[in-house]
Amino acid sequence: MTVQTPNVELFPFSEVSVLAANGPGQFEADVNPEWTIRDKPNGGYLLAMLGRAAASVTTHEHVIAASAHYLHSPDPGRVSVHTELLRSGRSASQVRARMSQDGQACVEALVTTSRLGNTTAPYWDSGLPEMVRTPYEDCDRLVPRTPDGGRVAIMEQIEVRLEADSRGFIRGQPSGRGELRGWLALPGGESFDPISLLFAVDAFPPATFEIEFSGWVPTLELTVYVRALPAPGPVRVLQRAQLIDDQRVDESCFVWDRTGRLVAQSTQLAGIRLG
Amino acid sequence: MTVQTPNVELFPFSEVSVLAANGPGQFEADVNPEWTIRDKPNGGYLLAMLGRAAASVTTHEHVIAASAHYLHSPDPGRVSVHTELLRSGRSASQVRARMSQDGQACVEALVTTSRLGNTTAPYWDSGLPEMVRTPYEDCDRLVPRTPDGGRVAIMEQIEVRLEADSRGFIRGQPSGRGELRGWLALPGGESFDPISLLFAVDAFPPATFEIEFSGWVPTLELTVYVRALPAPGPVRVLQRAQLIDDQRVDESCFVWDRTGRLVAQSTQLAGIRLG
Repeated sequence: MTVQTPNVELFPFSEVSVLAANGPGQFEADVNPEWTIRDKPNGGYLLAMLGRAAASVTTHEHVIAASAHYLHSPDPGRVSVHTELLRSGRSASQVRARMSQDGQACVEALVTTSRLGNTTAPYWDSGLPEMVRTPYEDCDRLVPRTPDGGRVAIMEQIEVRLEADSRGFIRGQPSGRGELRGWLALPGGESFDPISLLFAVDAFPPATFEIEFSGWVPTLELTVYVRALPAPGPVRVLQRAQLIDDQRVDESCFVWDRTGRLVAQSTQLAGIRLG
Repeated sequence: MTVQTPNVELFPFSEVSVLAANGPGQFEADVNPEWTIRDKPNGGYLLAMLGRAAASVTTHEHVIAASAHYLHSPDPGRVSVHTELLRSGRSASQVRARMSQDGQACVEALVTTSRLGNTTAPYWDSGLPEMVRTPYEDCDRLVPRTPDGGRVAIMEQIEVRLEADSRGFIRGQPSGRGELRGWLALPGGESFDPISLLFAVDAFPPATFEIEFSGWVPTLELTVYVRALPAPGPVRVLQRAQLIDDQRVDESCFVWDRTGRLVAQSTQLAGIRLG
C-alpha cells in the first residue's frame, strides 16, 4: 500500500538547496517552507546548504565530512551563508560555514572536502550493521503527520518508506528497539549526490519514536561522513538510537544506495523530553 | 602479566592540557612531547585542550559535544588557542575553538557546553554495544611500540590494557574483527572528567590494527559526545572500525566508567593506506 499525496507541489532538493553568490565566500539562500517539520526546517537540509557552500569555495568537489552545531532554528525564508576556507590541501580542504538569519547565527559547521574515488567496492565492511534488505515496493510510505497530529510538510516532498517492523509507532505500539529501517527518495526521484546525502542522514523521523513518542527531538550536533558516490535511485536507510540519558539521545544513521553500497553515515546528539 | 615502565617520568593529563589565558578568548599552551605517537601529538589530546578552552569561556561547565577537523599536525611545543563564543543560551552554549602553531591553523573545533545532570542511570540504553566486562586486572598493558617498532611515547604515560581477544595484532595475528576492548587509565591514576573524556575516545590504537597493520592512521574528523560524569578510576573502552573504503576508515568508540555507565562516545574518520 502506498500513500498518495496528490495535488502536492514538489520542490526538488536541488532547487530548495540552491545558493546565490553574494560576495567572496558569501551566499544567500531561501529555506523552503515545505521542507519543514511543524514549520521548523529539517537540520540535515540546513547542513546540506552549508555543505554546498563549502564545496563551492574549495578545489575538491566532494564533501566527505561535515559537523554541524545547531544554535537557533531559522524560520523558512531568506538566510545568509558565510564561508571561510581554513586550509586548501593537496588531497583535502577544510572550510568553516555559518548560516544566519536577520543577523542571528543559526547553524555553524566544519566541512572537509576531498575527491571520492571510483572504487567499486569497499576494502572491508564487516563492522557495519545489517543492511536494509526489504524491497522498496514492500515498504509503506510514511504519512505527513506526527503521531500527535502535527504537520510534517517535508514528508509530502520526500518519500520515507518504512519496513513493517519499523511502523509500530504509527499505531502507538513502538517496538522498543529504537530502530527505523526503510528507503528514502527525493522529490521527483532526483538522484542523490554527496550534498543531498548530508540531508539523507537526517530525513527519517527520530528513531526514538520506536521507543516512546516524545514530541520534538531538536538536534544539537550532527556529524556526517560521505563514503562513496551513490548510484541513481532511492537509498536504503537505517536510523537507530543508542542511549537516552539526562534528556539527550544519540542516534546513528547508515545510508546504502540501491546497489547496497554504504554511501553515508552519521551520528547526532539531540535533546529529548524523556527521563 | 603487566608491563612495567619503570623510570618513566609521568606527565599528568591535567598538567599537559593546561592553558594560560593570553587575552579575551585567547590562550597559550604547550603540547607535551611525551603525549605523542611517533612524535605526533594524539588527536584526542589536542581536542581536549580546545574543549578546556571552550568550556572556560561559557557559563556552562561541561562539554557535551565537540567536533574537530584536523588541518595540520602541530609539533610538540607552544601552540595558541583562539575561541569565539557563538551563542550563550539558557541550557547550552556553543563555541568555536582553533589551535594554531607559528601562525598555521592545526585543529578547528566546534564545542557545545551544557550541564551534565546527577541522574544515576540512563533512561534507555538498549542500542549500545556490549560493554567491556573483563576485569581491569585481567587485561594486559600495551607496550609503547607500534607493531613495526615505532615509539609510542604516550603509551608510557597512559595505561591501555587490552583483553586477550584484542591482542592478536601484537603478534601479527589480527582477529579480522576490527575491534579493541579494554581499559584506560590516566598517568598516576588521575580521575576522568568531561575534558579528559575528549581524549579517552582517541586513546586506543586504531581498531584497524585488528584487521591489518597499516602504519599511521591520521584522523580527519573526530566527534565526541560526553553523556555523563564518570566515576573515579579507570574507564572501559571499546574502539571499533565499521568500514574501510577509498583509503578512509570510520571508527566508533564507547567509554564506560568503572561502574558500567556509558560516559562518552565518539566517531572518527581517518585516512588509511589500505585498499
